[in-house]
Amino acid sequence: MTDAVKKTEYDVVVIGAGPVGENVADRTRAAGLTTAVVESELVGGECSYWACMPSKALLRPVVARADARKVPGLSGAVRGPLDADAVLAFRDEETSHWKDDGQVSWLDGIGAVVHRGKGRLTRAREVTVTGPDGEETLLTARHAVAVCTGSKAVVPSLPGVADVRPWTSREATSAKEVPGRLVVVGGGVVGVEMATAWQGLGAQVTMLVRGKGLLPKMEPFAGELVGEALTEAGARILTGVSAASVSRAGHDGPVTVELDDGTTVEADEILFATGRAPRTDDLGLDTVGLEPGSWLTVDDSCRVEGSDWLYAVGDVNHRALLTHQGKYQARIAGDVIAARARGTLPETDRWGAHAATADHAAVPQVVFTDPEAASVGLTLAEAEEAGHRVRAVDYDLASVAGSGLYAQGYKGQARMVVDLDREVLLGVTFVGPGIGELLHSATIAVAGEVPVERLWHAVPSYPTISEVWLRLLETYRG
Amino acid sequence: MTDAVKKTEYDVVVIGAGPVGENVADRTRAAGLTTAVVESELVGGECSYWACMPSKALLRPVVARADARKVPGLSGAVRGPLDADAVLAFRDEETSHWKDDGQVSWLDGIGAVVHRGKGRLTRAREVTVTGPDGEETLLTARHAVAVCTGSKAVVPSLPGVADVRPWTSREATSAKEVPGRLVVVGGGVVGVEMATAWQGLGAQVTMLVRGKGLLPKMEPFAGELVGEALTEAGARILTGVSAASVSRAGHDGPVTVELDDGTTVEADEILFATGRAPRTDDLGLDTVGLEPGSWLTVDDSCRVEGSDWLYAVGDVNHRALLTHQGKYQARIAGDVIAARARGTLPETDRWGAHAATADHAAVPQVVFTDPEAASVGLTLAEAEEAGHRVRAVDYDLASVAGSGLYAQGYKGQARMVVDLDREVLLGVTFVGPGIGELLHSATIAVAGEVPVERLWHAVPSYPTISEVWLRLLETYRG
Repeated sequence: MTDAVKKTEYDVVVIGAGPVGENVADRTRAAGLTTAVVESELVGGECSYWACMPSKALLRPVVARADARKVPGLSGAVRGPLDADAVLAFRDEETSHWKDDGQVSWLDGIGAVVHRGKGRLTRAREVTVTGPDGEETLLTARHAVAVCTGSKAVVPSLPGVADVRPWTSREATSAKEVPGRLVVVGGGVVGVEMATAWQGLGAQVTMLVRGKGLLPKMEPFAGELVGEALTEAGARILTGVSAASVSRAGHDGPVTVELDDGTTVEADEILFATGRAPRTDDLGLDTVGLEPGSWLTVDDSCRVEGSDWLYAVGDVNHRALLTHQGKYQARIAGDVIAARARGTLPETDRWGAHAATADHAAVPQVVFTDPEAASVGLTLAEAEEAGHRVRAVDYDLASVAGSGLYAQGYKGQARMVVDLDREVLLGVTFVGPGIGELLHSATIAVAGEVPVERLWHAVPSYPTISEVWLRLLETYRG
Repeated sequence: MTDAVKKTEYDVVVIGAGPVGENVADRTRAAGLTTAVVESELVGGECSYWACMPSKALLRPVVARADARKVPGLSGAVRGPLDADAVLAFRDEETSHWKDDGQVSWLDGIGAVVHRGKGRLTRAREVTVTGPDGEETLLTARHAVAVCTGSKAVVPSLPGVADVRPWTSREATSAKEVPGRLVVVGGGVVGVEMATAWQGLGAQVTMLVRGKGLLPKMEPFAGELVGEALTEAGARILTGVSAASVSRAGHDGPVTVELDDGTTVEADEILFATGRAPRTDDLGLDTVGLEPGSWLTVDDSCRVEGSDWLYAVGDVNHRALLTHQGKYQARIAGDVIAARARGTLPETDRWGAHAATADHAAVPQVVFTDPEAASVGLTLAEAEEAGHRVRAVDYDLASVAGSGLYAQGYKGQARMVVDLDREVLLGVTFVGPGIGELLHSATIAVAGEVPVERLWHAVPSYPTISEVWLRLLETYRG
């Protein structure tokens, strides 16, 4: 240890200053624990600059136009194209032009200390930060180190892939202009959202989907309805195909994708929305007996199994790769670190204050496409696989008065999965225009384990789309 | 009794074939009880032809345009006026052009017998129907008579009022053209909705409000935000004033309203949105010892106090003058009539299957204005007046990421009223664009009595407006 290495001791060291790291720090600071936050890129993380915020900024105008086109008296006015420059400028605003001053100020405001640089574990309770100029700082954590480094896009190692400079979710959300033609590889959430956004903004999108359909983790009707609308909007969806190789003509020429069926697709850019990997490969995990590059397995308090000081919160623990779920874990992890620091017994029973129970039972997700697709909890297939005795109750969302008032020619579908033994809901899925905000009713019903007989007393306001709740309950009663 | 009078016996006789009467019949028929439904106007009732359906058909384009104007890349396209003819045509479609064939078929389909004509009680368990041609039919009810006649608009008896042919909610929802200038008297739900609709469709609206502000039954910020937006849209709102007299120049000339402050307002039409009265004045209530023209007081099973056969369901019992709440009561009343007919003990405990408990604890309402205003349960003032130990938790809806993505320049407000003794929510109010579907989350939380500590596990999906739930809970925790 030379004089050149600064040493600092904190109660808690957080690696990664995305929304998850910020929320861990928020809770540990609220409990009076000194807290360092280490970040090698922008404070605010993937969500603020290359995921939720920019993607939704690009999507909202596309979805709002799709909805407005179904409104009488208004539809004629919105037949034309969107002003893509205005949308991109809005996206730039919503990402604070990829500057993190506001987020740094927020961390300053709660009294967390930001260390700019790459944080690596160097032994138990010790994180070494390599700053931008190569200077090293050694941080010791009295109580806990929380790894909140998130995940990164996986680009498959296809022949030619490096040469085409492929887009990942980062480039897809931060692109400065609308590509003429865009190939989207992958039919999951990132794939359908970015296909919707760029097709809506004027690109000609072709989706390459390995499986049978889109949104394979949701109820089957979600991918079907979103796929229909994407096709209607002019996108081309090829299912059951994979890219075999890719190449780009010259430096700025078009990309050619050779498919495994021998055909080719040409485009100006190619986006790989083909999954995520944990950001744990260069984190010094080996110094504490863990496998670099692996997902970190944690208990419900987000503590790494076998450790009494190491926490992994957010995407990196692979429980639920969603910003809001990571923030939920962060609130719990921050509180539980504080409780253990005080010597208080944490409340880690199911649904206790220090147990991320919703990760198992009530993970919500809204896909901001046209139509919106939203779900919480288990799908029918998941519930059956988990051994629950269940019944799926389906209802055509277009048959609800509020839907027809919301949009002419409304298309949508709702499903609730009822646990027949406990008479509570295990999962709910809504797909249709204007249902994004409706999801939280289902999240409260599922997480709150509100009995079906009590849900009968939760009267939906007429004529909203939420009346589908009444129809689902009536259908269940039969 | 002459041969000219037809006599028919049913298990149940329902007077009034609005949504409430239809739902009572639906439940009694499902239980196998023979059921007659008496209707003197259109089957489907006020809601289908002169309230919910036409008003929302007129409002949706206005609100959708207001929202679209706040969306980047789209706002320019929707600067112009709405196509009012298209909106009126849509309204005509949504009311089935004021024809009730579909609703009659539905009643036929469930096996209820429709009697066209005016139904009046003539003694206990007996309803005499006077048909369109004056022919009388005497219906006897073995088990129950359900009065579902609803309510009607009250027009104050001002000097000159008959001569101006004033609009009530019926004319306001069924008008065939947009008036040049419209005076709206009253600042409640009907007043603000119709002011929003007609101002948005091109009328110059002036509101005359007796009290200090709009929407006096909701949290104060609801009326304030709706009033601001109405003013921005070009409407004129005069508060603390009343109409003293009205007159119309000639037969089709303008209406002049003289106010109690001596000033006058001129318009082409005048709408009185000044309250409702029960439709019980010509119902033969005196033949069964009740007061004609009075609201009918019922217990939680919707049975009229002191009677073992007479039920009053929907507006007419004055518990909650809302279609959805009337339908809720109807499901319960229909079931309880069936239970009592079977000799089964009804479940009339709090939140039981046969108790309309939500009428007291969890009445939801969405006001379809720009911004939308939605509430469930008690306001702070109501909770305090009822003697609860409560805390109101407020949050600026504009500070939620999802709000800024939904609309630029978003303005809104949220409040939850927490019962400090039981740590459950007694009421929730949201005001802002795009929150109509969010209300049901609050309705489930309030009706479900989901504890605050469990609501922490109901994670709002990011970045939706529903994230306000997290902010409210954080604010409550402090």
